[in-house]
Order: sequence, then structure tokens, then C-alpha cells
Amino acid sequence: MTTTDTQTSTTELMLAIGKKAKAAARILRNATDKQKSTALLQMADLLLEKKDELIAANRKDLEAAKERNLAAALVDRLTISETTIQSMATGLRQIAAMPDPVGKRSETIVRPNGMMVAQMRVPIGVIGIIYESRPNVTIDAAALCIKSGNATILRGGSEAFHSNQALGEVILEGLRAAKLPEDCVQVVPTTDRAAVGSLVTMTDYVDVIVPRGGKGLIERLSQEASVPLIKHLDGNCHLYIDKDADLAKAHAVAINAKTYRYGICGTMETLLVHHEVAPALLPDLCADLQQKGVELRGCERTRNLVDDIKEATDEDWETEFLAPILAIRIVDSYDQAVDHIALYSSEHTESIVTENLNTALRFQKEVDSSSVYVNLPTCFADGFEYGLGAEIGISTNRLHARGPVGLEGLTTEKWVLTGNGQLRGQ
Amino acid sequence: MTTTDTQTSTTELMLAIGKKAKAAARILRNATDKQKSTALLQMADLLLEKKDELIAANRKDLEAAKERNLAAALVDRLTISETTIQSMATGLRQIAAMPDPVGKRSETIVRPNGMMVAQMRVPIGVIGIIYESRPNVTIDAAALCIKSGNATILRGGSEAFHSNQALGEVILEGLRAAKLPEDCVQVVPTTDRAAVGSLVTMTDYVDVIVPRGGKGLIERLSQEASVPLIKHLDGNCHLYIDKDADLAKAHAVAINAKTYRYGICGTMETLLVHHEVAPALLPDLCADLQQKGVELRGCERTRNLVDDIKEATDEDWETEFLAPILAIRIVDSYDQAVDHIALYSSEHTESIVTENLNTALRFQKEVDSSSVYVNLPTCFADGFEYGLGAEIGISTNRLHARGPVGLEGLTTEKWVLTGNGQLRGQ
Repeated sequence: MTTTDTQTSTTELMLAIGKKAKAAARILRNATDKQKSTALLQMADLLLEKKDELIAANRKDLEAAKERNLAAALVDRLTISETTIQSMATGLRQIAAMPDPVGKRSETIVRPNGMMVAQMRVPIGVIGIIYESRPNVTIDAAALCIKSGNATILRGGSEAFHSNQALGEVILEGLRAAKLPEDCVQVVPTTDRAAVGSLVTMTDYVDVIVPRGGKGLIERLSQEASVPLIKHLDGNCHLYIDKDADLAKAHAVAINAKTYRYGICGTMETLLVHHEVAPALLPDLCADLQQKGVELRGCERTRNLVDDIKEATDEDWETEFLAPILAIRIVDSYDQAVDHIALYSSEHTESIVTENLNTALRFQKEVDSSSVYVNLPTCFADGFEYGLGAEIGISTNRLHARGPVGLEGLTTEKWVLTGNGQLRGQ
Repeated sequence: MTTTDTQTSTTELMLAIGKKAKAAARILRNATDKQKSTALLQMADLLLEKKDELIAANRKDLEAAKERNLAAALVDRLTISETTIQSMATGLRQIAAMPDPVGKRSETIVRPNGMMVAQMRVPIGVIGIIYESRPNVTIDAAALCIKSGNATILRGGSEAFHSNQALGEVILEGLRAAKLPEDCVQVVPTTDRAAVGSLVTMTDYVDVIVPRGGKGLIERLSQEASVPLIKHLDGNCHLYIDKDADLAKAHAVAINAKTYRYGICGTMETLLVHHEVAPALLPDLCADLQQKGVELRGCERTRNLVDDIKEATDEDWETEFLAPILAIRIVDSYDQAVDHIALYSSEHTESIVTENLNTALRFQKEVDSSSVYVNLPTCFADGFEYGLGAEIGISTNRLHARGPVGLEGLTTEKWVLTGNGQLRGQ
């Protein structure tokens, strides 16, 4: 076939998948929690039963990865081991045990004419997930979508094709066991890049796309997509040490915010320190960070205070390093810290360390990020840590779900009004 | 200037407006409710004081409308009278009196490590409103946005240019009196169509667009926009009379649903009737509707039952008539009614008339529209009727606000976490 022929057939394939997803969504929307949880528990059992098959399918991807000289980190993320299978199964059981978000009604308001007004939580409809490398996303995303009553179209990276197809079989069997339509979860059966282009523009069939991957992928999708995206581009997270901070707390929180893990989106990338506490805090803190292998880039005042610090550039203030690098700035005041955040933050997660109640409340009110902390490291940005049980991703969108997106973020609300023949205008 | 020059300067103008709106939004976001309400109450007083000036400005638009032979209905909507000024002032005072949605915190969850997790309601940011004809939208939209803490860019129709500019002056004076930045509300000072194109694509400065106008306008904007829209395209609303309906109630609800007003989006456009009750219900109901001047278009079975009914086509099932026309179909079962709705509805508002509890609850659960009623006419679709106090529009989006959008729909939430030095992974 020519390239154009392949594209046409991929478009047709994706439209057919979309149509089937929409039909399945109508049934899944009305499924009981028991059915949905049965599917997930079955999937958990099947993962463990079929672990040899899954590891064999994964081996094909790993061999191809070796031939293509994929980076070691990517190969690591791609690998399915007994441990990853066990943790996928545990995740499925945890999600199965969570309360069903669907059908929940808000408080009911009774209008003067006796009419009752409430809101009911309902699934969004059809959710497309586009992700790279990690095959465990196939299971996690399918589980969250099934539990929240949404049909799903899963498009993983081509490097994980065989693994994802094998995991897709497990999902199918789980759905069958729960007497749910097989089309509730569809793993896209082609590596053709045109499938992604179709998925993000099929507004008739797909209600939302959740992209999981690097900034490059997400920027590209944002430009192409006409379906709305639940997403964040980057996590340029700030920690501000206020003049009224407890310095021991500040030290521990800063170390944890930077070094808990370098590669997660909640990692602190810039540390802002009030000038009154900088001399007492920074020398020890910087030494500890450097000792842990963190490269420091500072403003002039920071460099006057501590040795071996590179000069921070404007680009450093803007950058999510995702690496053992930290930018440090000494500020004159609370306001200068908040202005710095307003200018450079990606509105993901920011935190203040202070013992002052008013300053803490002001910071939570005035900083316009999806998560705003007091006396906590920014690396807490995670659905499990917030008590959501699981998350499909973190959103810095201003509409719909913001911050970690769990089951509730995968639902929407409709108004339900109940009357007894009330008429309007009478 | 050439057309290209005009476009360039309009683009620059709009970018400058966007930048100013974003800066103003940062201040308005943190304004007290007292400041915001003061602005609205001042605007109410000023409207009444300046009514002669406003009517004079409006006269310029009316004269231009006459020269351009605008349709009488449009001229009617364009007209500012003492009554419309009075009702704008009343609206402002009502919105001022409503509770401030901003800053409200959800229930707080305490995590095992003692960290407290809650969500805080916050303004969205900058809202663009694109509307036609009615100058009162200038005041209503500005008031809702100010009260919800959002900066606004208002782009009315060119036919209302002078009226909107004069109303914009009133808004400015209100903001000044409350010591809020003038840029909190900006009325676009040009009729150049390129301004709309800029507004809906300035993703750096505008967070959401609320279009108010006909389906044509909204379809055009949906295609052009990269900023998300809170919108509905049409309201093809259904009323289903179940076999267990109280027929007197069904009769009254159907008449009200169709004839309360023909031109609003909640008006019933298709009536579905269970075949068991059709013979007892339809002859009288159709006679009453015809007597009120409603043209009826029915399925074959309806036409066998009642005289003077045209044949309904597929197009009729799909159409929001916005006129004294009604499509009627007799269905075999509840399921056929729900299937018809799933196929043809615009997911705006649907209603069932039934005395059967199970059927009522099934309908509210299974029908996937933004509002689903029991024993109520669809024409209740309105923010005031739901108790929201006011509305900026009705949304059939699946993400963020669905159904009537009031102050809460103009806000979003952020996570606020408060700790005492808890660390992750320890």
C-alpha cells in the first residue's frame, strides 16, 4: 500500500474504533459498580495467571528495543517483570475497592414551587489515552476508566506494542467475565502514527484525551487536537522559604522537595528564600544538596553567600530541569517571591514554609497554581498522596479537573430536576 | 489603511487588551466581596442616573439599524428603554447580593501523616464574551464576571456598538468607585471582525470564551477557537410521556413545554408518547396545541390518530425549530423513547412524565443530557429557575460546567494542602 492508502485505512480503522467506543460507553455508563469491580478483579487474577505469556510478549518489545538501541532508561520503563505484574494486580484491586463515583447526587435544593434540583455525577463518555513506553499505563488507565464508567481507547507507544496487545487481551477477558461489552476498552491495533492524529480529532466519538508523556508529545498533541485535553505541560515548581519559617523544617522540606525523586513533575525546580533568613539557612542547605549531587545555580546574592554556585540565567528560572539541578534566588519580600512565581511558574505546584498564619493563608489564596502548599515539599503532588486512591495524571488546565486527576476528574455532572407537574411562568 | 494594516492593528489592539486583562485578573482574583459588590451597586445607581445618555447612545444604533433595514425582532432586542435600564439595575443588585463563590473551601481530608487536603474555589482568570444584539448582555456578563472574580473582555455585535460603549463607561465608573482596576472589564472599542478572531485564539491571555448567539455564530467560533468555549449549539429538547403518566399532568406539562416561549433553548421540539396512552392523550393535546397556533408534524401512527398533522421527516427529529412547530412520535416502549433521544437529542434538556418511581429514576440515570427532568416541562432550563440567581449561558460541554452556568460555573478549584513539615516517602 502507498502511504496515503495506509493513512486512509488507519483513519477508517480509528473511526470504527470510535464508533464502537461510543456505543460501549452507553452501556458502561449504566453498569453497576459490582460489574465494573468484577472486571477489574478478574483482570488482576488473569495478570498473575498469564504472567509467563505477558513476559514473553514483553520480551519481543525488549528485543526490538535493543536492536533500535533505545536508551537504558526507556528500556527500564518498558520492562515487565514479575514485580511489575504484581503491582499492576495490586493497583487493580485497589481501584476495584474504591467507591463508585457514578450516580452520586449532590445536596438537593427545593425551589419555591416545590421543584427539586440536584446534580448527579456521571461518566464523561469516551476517553482517549495516549502514552509512551510504560506498559503498566495500559492496565492503570483502563482500570480508572472502567471504574469511572468511561469507554477507553488506548494508544501506547510503538516500542511497547506487543506488551500492550497482550495486556489488552487480559482486559478483554476481564470485561467478558463481567458481561461488559468488549469495546469498553480498545487497544489500538496499529503503530501507524496517523492513528494518533485521528484519535485527537474525532470529536464525534471521543470526549477527552489524556496524554501521558514528555512535554514534546503533549505540545504536539495540543496543537493537533480538537478534542479537549486533560494535561499539564511541565512542572516548574517553587518552594518559598518565608522570613517567618522554622529553619529546621525549611531545611528538611527543601531537601525532600528536590531529592525525593528528580524526574517527577512535583520536584522543586526553584528555591526562593527571604533575605532575612538566607544567611542562616542557605550555607548548610546548599552544602547538603551539593553533597547529594545537586548542581546549584543561584542569583548574585546567593553566590555571595555560598561557594561553588553557578550564575542562574533567565532560562534557569523558566526550566523544569527534571534533573539534579536547582535554581536558587534570594528575594526581598513575600511579594517578590509571589511575583517571581506568577512570572515563571507553570501553575503546577508551589509551596511556602512559614509559621505565620496570615502569610500562609495569603500564599494559598494568592498563588494561582493547581496545588498550593504550606509547610510541605512540592513532591507531594500525586493522587495517592492526596487520598484520591489513584490518578490518571495531573492537570494544569483551568477548566474541569485541576491538579491530580482521580476517578472524580474522569466524571462530569448533569442536573436532575424532579417535580410534580410544576409549570414555568405560573 | 489597507485591510492588512487594519488587521495588524486590530491584532495588536486585542493583544494589548488581553495583556491588560491578565494583569487586572491577578488583582480582581484577590478582591474582597465587598469591593466587587460595591462596583455592581455603583453600576446600578449609575445606570439609572445616566439613563438619558444611554438612551441617546442607543438611538444612534437604532438609527443605523433602520438604515440597514435590520429585522424588526433584531431592532426590538437592540432597543434600550427605561424598562430595560431598570431591569439591568435590578439584575446588578441581585448579583451583588449573591454569596461570593471565591475562596470557598471544600471539606478537609486529613491524610495518615497529618497533612490536610482541601479544594478552594477560585476564579478562572480572563473570560471573553462574544454576543449579538442585546446590549443588556454587556451589563449582565460584566456583573457575573466581576462577582466571580474574573477579568472580562466583552465583544458585542457591531449593531450595538454605541450602546455597548456607553454601557462600558458605566462599568468603568463602577470599577473606579470600588477601587478596582479599570481593565477588569474591557469593551472592545472596534467593530472590526478580526477582533473576534484574535480573541478566540489568544491562549496566553484568555482562559475561556462564552459565546452568546445563534447556532451559526457558535459553529463558526468553535472552528476558529483555540481558547476553550463554554457553549451549547442547540436545544433539541424532548418530552417523553410514559405509559404510567398522569395524563392531566402530561397535558399541562406538554403545553407549557412548547408554548411558554417558542424562541428559548429549553422549548420542547419533539414529543414522544408511549403507544398505550397516545389514544387517550393526543387528540385533546394536539387540538389545544393547534388552537394555540402550533404546527404539528407526526409519525404515521400519530397521523392515524389525529387530523391535520404533516408527516415528520428525519430532518424534523433533528431540528431545533425555535418556532411554533412540534414533532410528535408514538413509541412502542420506554426503551424506544430513550433510543430516540440518544440518536437525535442535542444533550441539552430532556424530560419524562411518569408516576412510576423506577421509570423516573431510570430515565434520570440513562438519559445523557446536561439536564434531565421528571414531571416538569423542558422550558425550566434556566439558571434563575434552578436557583443559581443568574446565568451566563447554558453549556452542553462534557467537561467543566454543564447545564445552566452561574457564578460557580465561572470558577474553578485548586488544591490547598497544609502541613507541618511532613516529608514524602518517610
